[in-house]
Amino acid sequence: MRLATLRDGTPDGRLVIVSPDGGRWAPAPVGTLQQLLEQWDEAVPACAAVTTFAEPLDPQALAAPLPRAWQWLDGSAFDSHGALMDQVFGISPERTGLPLMYQGLSDRFYGPHDDVPLPDAALGIDFEGEFGVIVDAVPMGTSAAAALGHVRLVVQINDWSLRALAGPEMKTGFGWVQAKPACSMAGIAVTPEELGGQWRDGRVCLDLLVDWNGDRFGAPNGAAMAFGFHELIAHAARTRALPAGTIIGSGTVSNANFREVGSTCIAERRGIEIVDEGAARTGFMRFGDTVRMEARLADGRAPFGAIAQRVVQAG
Amino acid sequence: MRLATLRDGTPDGRLVIVSPDGGRWAPAPVGTLQQLLEQWDEAVPACAAVTTFAEPLDPQALAAPLPRAWQWLDGSAFDSHGALMDQVFGISPERTGLPLMYQGLSDRFYGPHDDVPLPDAALGIDFEGEFGVIVDAVPMGTSAAAALGHVRLVVQINDWSLRALAGPEMKTGFGWVQAKPACSMAGIAVTPEELGGQWRDGRVCLDLLVDWNGDRFGAPNGAAMAFGFHELIAHAARTRALPAGTIIGSGTVSNANFREVGSTCIAERRGIEIVDEGAARTGFMRFGDTVRMEARLADGRAPFGAIAQRVVQAG
Repeated sequence: MRLATLRDGTPDGRLVIVSPDGGRWAPAPVGTLQQLLEQWDEAVPACAAVTTFAEPLDPQALAAPLPRAWQWLDGSAFDSHGALMDQVFGISPERTGLPLMYQGLSDRFYGPHDDVPLPDAALGIDFEGEFGVIVDAVPMGTSAAAALGHVRLVVQINDWSLRALAGPEMKTGFGWVQAKPACSMAGIAVTPEELGGQWRDGRVCLDLLVDWNGDRFGAPNGAAMAFGFHELIAHAARTRALPAGTIIGSGTVSNANFREVGSTCIAERRGIEIVDEGAARTGFMRFGDTVRMEARLADGRAPFGAIAQRVVQAG
Repeated sequence: MRLATLRDGTPDGRLVIVSPDGGRWAPAPVGTLQQLLEQWDEAVPACAAVTTFAEPLDPQALAAPLPRAWQWLDGSAFDSHGALMDQVFGISPERTGLPLMYQGLSDRFYGPHDDVPLPDAALGIDFEGEFGVIVDAVPMGTSAAAALGHVRLVVQINDWSLRALAGPEMKTGFGWVQAKPACSMAGIAVTPEELGGQWRDGRVCLDLLVDWNGDRFGAPNGAAMAFGFHELIAHAARTRALPAGTIIGSGTVSNANFREVGSTCIAERRGIEIVDEGAARTGFMRFGDTVRMEARLADGRAPFGAIAQRVVQAG
């Protein structure tokens, strides 16, 4: 099942069901995605029974599938990303063997084609390509094995970052607030089975294709997570119950052969430059720059649709 | 004006207006506190016009004034607390001269008399007494001077912490997830003018009286914040717009003369013991332990009511 949210002037928008080819939609029998997630088992059969899609889907009309969420917990599960970022920030944070995770802003997620307003290009504007999952209610203390059954939807996320603020915030030990403005989400949230064999061991085993200003920047594969999403969920739920609609992020998709496959954030390329050449030479984004992010199944379909958006000066 | 939320079986409860003596309530003309915060200027006159309070207030029936919020950003604005915590965790985090702040769990706040379920007493269960403010919508880039006008309500918070997890999470640079379970809130949220001259320079200039298992543990004053709430709000809003209903916390109330006034968290007392005696001897909370937190005006009234609750094993 493929779900999307049409803008309708309300904060949560209007839930629709998207055709397998992504080109059309039908009304959902539940008003919003949050409502569906709160009553998944009862409400999902009626959604799954929708097989006629009469309306053409305008990607510009899409909000994020979940335009706001009660909780957004972003992991950093790709080891090659972490190692490069330590180079960029000039830090050696302690690694505990546990997943890395922070809580980010969740009161708004930009839609896939929204302009993204940020205050100052000198702050080091960067994209971060991620996969994510949305869970139903997860009790405190849920095991990783049990957590897999709470994954209701898989999503694709651009976790906007301000790199000039990120290193200093890490060094306080408090984590990020200013360095992490609102994220964007691709327009379509899919149930795991829509990914077929590419949903495996709690991982989205697809290349994430990222273009910056129209040029391919990277295409690493999501399979390389050091922890699967089920393990990230269990980590998050160790001391808290997770409300339905909690979104868990993979962290920036990154592969160890980053010189071949490229990166899904600029900071990582700068880290490679520091390692290889002694200094970073790639700059961060400028106002007006665009980024496009998309994953494709073997048959060529983009299960999440594409994020394709532009950074603009906040006014 | 004094506002509270009665449990009614819904996640957001039912907003009521509380009498000046805290003993009675009247229905509010707006359903929930979140709704009021989203339409403050339009809706507050009708709330302020309520002057007859027919119903006796049962403190046990109170939820947190805002039982869930779109955002909870907790500062750490008391310097004497930070210095002692560095002792406890054995760390020397970098200080930037900017406010310290992390984003915490906001999908639920416990009411003032709720039992607080936690998974394991070996995790170092600790209370943290704080003051907080609730804002209406704050645009990105709002100045500290302008932020003061966005403070609609003042609240009192117990920021539950798991100390065995806190130090290791700080050392990752990602901040806290597991170390910060859901917080509790005193039952009554007040508009700043209810505090009279004790709301001053964006600070709650009241002693916060904390009792652990019935014994006075500390009574430091909230005036000692190194940054006022308006400065914390501006810090939070530098790269994000804050939705109406965002709660901003002061961090653990602490005074430099902590040996005289005591502390509002156990970890701080342990820090003092480490400084004075070379090792901590006060243990953390055990299941069944209680904590009470209350501030009082000059006339003896407790503007926020009291937090008085018990820690229990999650089951």
